[in-house]
Amino acid sequence: MKKLINSVETVEDEMVQGLVKAYPKYLSKLDCGNVVVRANKKEGKVALISGGGSGHEPAHAGYVGEGMLDAAVAGAVFTSPTPDQIFEGIKAIATDAGVLMVIKNYTGDVMNFEMAGEMAEMEGISVKQVVVNDDVAVEDSLYTVGRRGVAGTVFVHKIAGALAETGASLDEVQAVAQKVIDNVRTMGAAIAPCTVPASGKPGFELAEDEMEVGIGIHGEPGTHREKIMTANDITDHLLEKILADIDYSGSEVAVMINGSGATPLMELYIINNRVADVLAEKGIKVVETFVGEYMTSIEMAGFSISLLKLDDQMKELLAAKADTPAFKA
Amino acid sequence: MKKLINSVETVEDEMVQGLVKAYPKYLSKLDCGNVVVRANKKEGKVALISGGGSGHEPAHAGYVGEGMLDAAVAGAVFTSPTPDQIFEGIKAIATDAGVLMVIKNYTGDVMNFEMAGEMAEMEGISVKQVVVNDDVAVEDSLYTVGRRGVAGTVFVHKIAGALAETGASLDEVQAVAQKVIDNVRTMGAAIAPCTVPASGKPGFELAEDEMEVGIGIHGEPGTHREKIMTANDITDHLLEKILADIDYSGSEVAVMINGSGATPLMELYIINNRVADVLAEKGIKVVETFVGEYMTSIEMAGFSISLLKLDDQMKELLAAKADTPAFKA
Repeated sequence: MKKLINSVETVEDEMVQGLVKAYPKYLSKLDCGNVVVRANKKEGKVALISGGGSGHEPAHAGYVGEGMLDAAVAGAVFTSPTPDQIFEGIKAIATDAGVLMVIKNYTGDVMNFEMAGEMAEMEGISVKQVVVNDDVAVEDSLYTVGRRGVAGTVFVHKIAGALAETGASLDEVQAVAQKVIDNVRTMGAAIAPCTVPASGKPGFELAEDEMEVGIGIHGEPGTHREKIMTANDITDHLLEKILADIDYSGSEVAVMINGSGATPLMELYIINNRVADVLAEKGIKVVETFVGEYMTSIEMAGFSISLLKLDDQMKELLAAKADTPAFKA
Repeated sequence: MKKLINSVETVEDEMVQGLVKAYPKYLSKLDCGNVVVRANKKEGKVALISGGGSGHEPAHAGYVGEGMLDAAVAGAVFTSPTPDQIFEGIKAIATDAGVLMVIKNYTGDVMNFEMAGEMAEMEGISVKQVVVNDDVAVEDSLYTVGRRGVAGTVFVHKIAGALAETGASLDEVQAVAQKVIDNVRTMGAAIAPCTVPASGKPGFELAEDEMEVGIGIHGEPGTHREKIMTANDITDHLLEKILADIDYSGSEVAVMINGSGATPLMELYIINNRVADVLAEKGIKVVETFVGEYMTSIEMAGFSISLLKLDDQMKELLAAKADTPAFKA
């Protein structure tokens, strides 16, 4: 395993400290483990918390700031944060308007966030939740019942976070978060795996001419392995699955071409070149495109495509101001 | 060679098209090769042009937009753009206030930009230039006489671009660009090389326990090879070289921890954790930190550290509004 780290034991702590030291105007860290909150708490609004295992940087702590999250909780790499950790995050950000938990659909995350939510409710904090499940690749996986939550989660942060900033109620913020979930679909593929530091070995092995289709974001294998295709062919395959899942025809959409960690922007732009052409051909109007690393899998070489079908409310909230270390609008 | 591309012949064209299709509000492409300009030309200000070989994405086209560049010219991967291409870019963005060329110090880039500048002068366009040479690793290299221009170039774009936006004169914009160059230093290291698509082979080979110190951004070898160190040790080594080059003591600085293309953000944050501690210990005050991929080498796994010593003018211009695909402030 070849990595720029100091020791496998300190990866998560040093990473979170390095992030907070880079962006002190935005972020501060609680004393109880890797919980990152806004440097300046904003009262009177619904507070958003998200998180999960580490290894998805800049998710989720990079999205803490105005117009997005109020807290992000980071577990060990690809491991759910504990209920105690999440509970501390909730307590730190809770306002009279309540707290929305944005959970990616993985069994451990759902269980631990729900437990933390119950602990907070017992202390009189209003907590609601949404569970993101945008990955069309698999119905159930190694780590989930139902579809996995992947890069589409960032659209949930952005849009629900923007509504929360307006002073909307907890029910309204939960409703718009659920609307994003209902309208976003994602699928990915990879040409090289990633290595969890504590394990020291790649999550799967691929031959020089193979790719893994339908990958998740935890280094787990996808739906199947096949001979590597051209960028256009693999893009067409992923888009076909996404477009078959909900009816995008005649819609306005936001597009995210998300890199998995080691994929050069060069390749992501080439993929977007195809995505833009296919959507134009189908009469689907792209309102905004995001190309970059939004939800990574450490140093996996791969990508995912997310399509969010927009209505006027989501369109306006997507364009609203966001000021966070990793996402500005 | 395992890449998400369609063919080695079309990499640059498809990439630039995919970028422009992602950000049509910001960018448009000229018909004469890979020259990207602002979607809306702004008259009455000094226009900035930069560029070089492809493979450094998001540099430079990702920095075209308000408060930074007016045009970016992309050659083939790691190959200078032609004088004709640069000349077309200059003509497209030229205003009565003149054009500043921001050139990274590589022999081909300097020669071709200078030739294009002369062609533009003959057409009555006022053109001045600066040459960025921030890399402290080597005095001369495979591709340069004198030091190489690397990630510090992004600070030149940001600060000179912000001054240009205020309506400052060409001399003033050139002077502040030169001030940034005089005050920024960078050094990098890599643990895995990159592969130029047209060559199909990595630029160098490293054993599982080796790293290359003092790398440039064109896949070329660095100053020397050694056993891989901890993130803290390699960070200390690079910082030592940078801090020995100009006197930063008691200064305010901007820090850039730049990923080379395949380095996960996790590792860049860990590196920043050390950089922040060392600078704090030395009494050097960090005003702003940038962690991410700003000047890449396709899918090289590595990073560079840049330190820009600030004065009040540079500090203000660094914080001024920028609205481009890859850099927002």
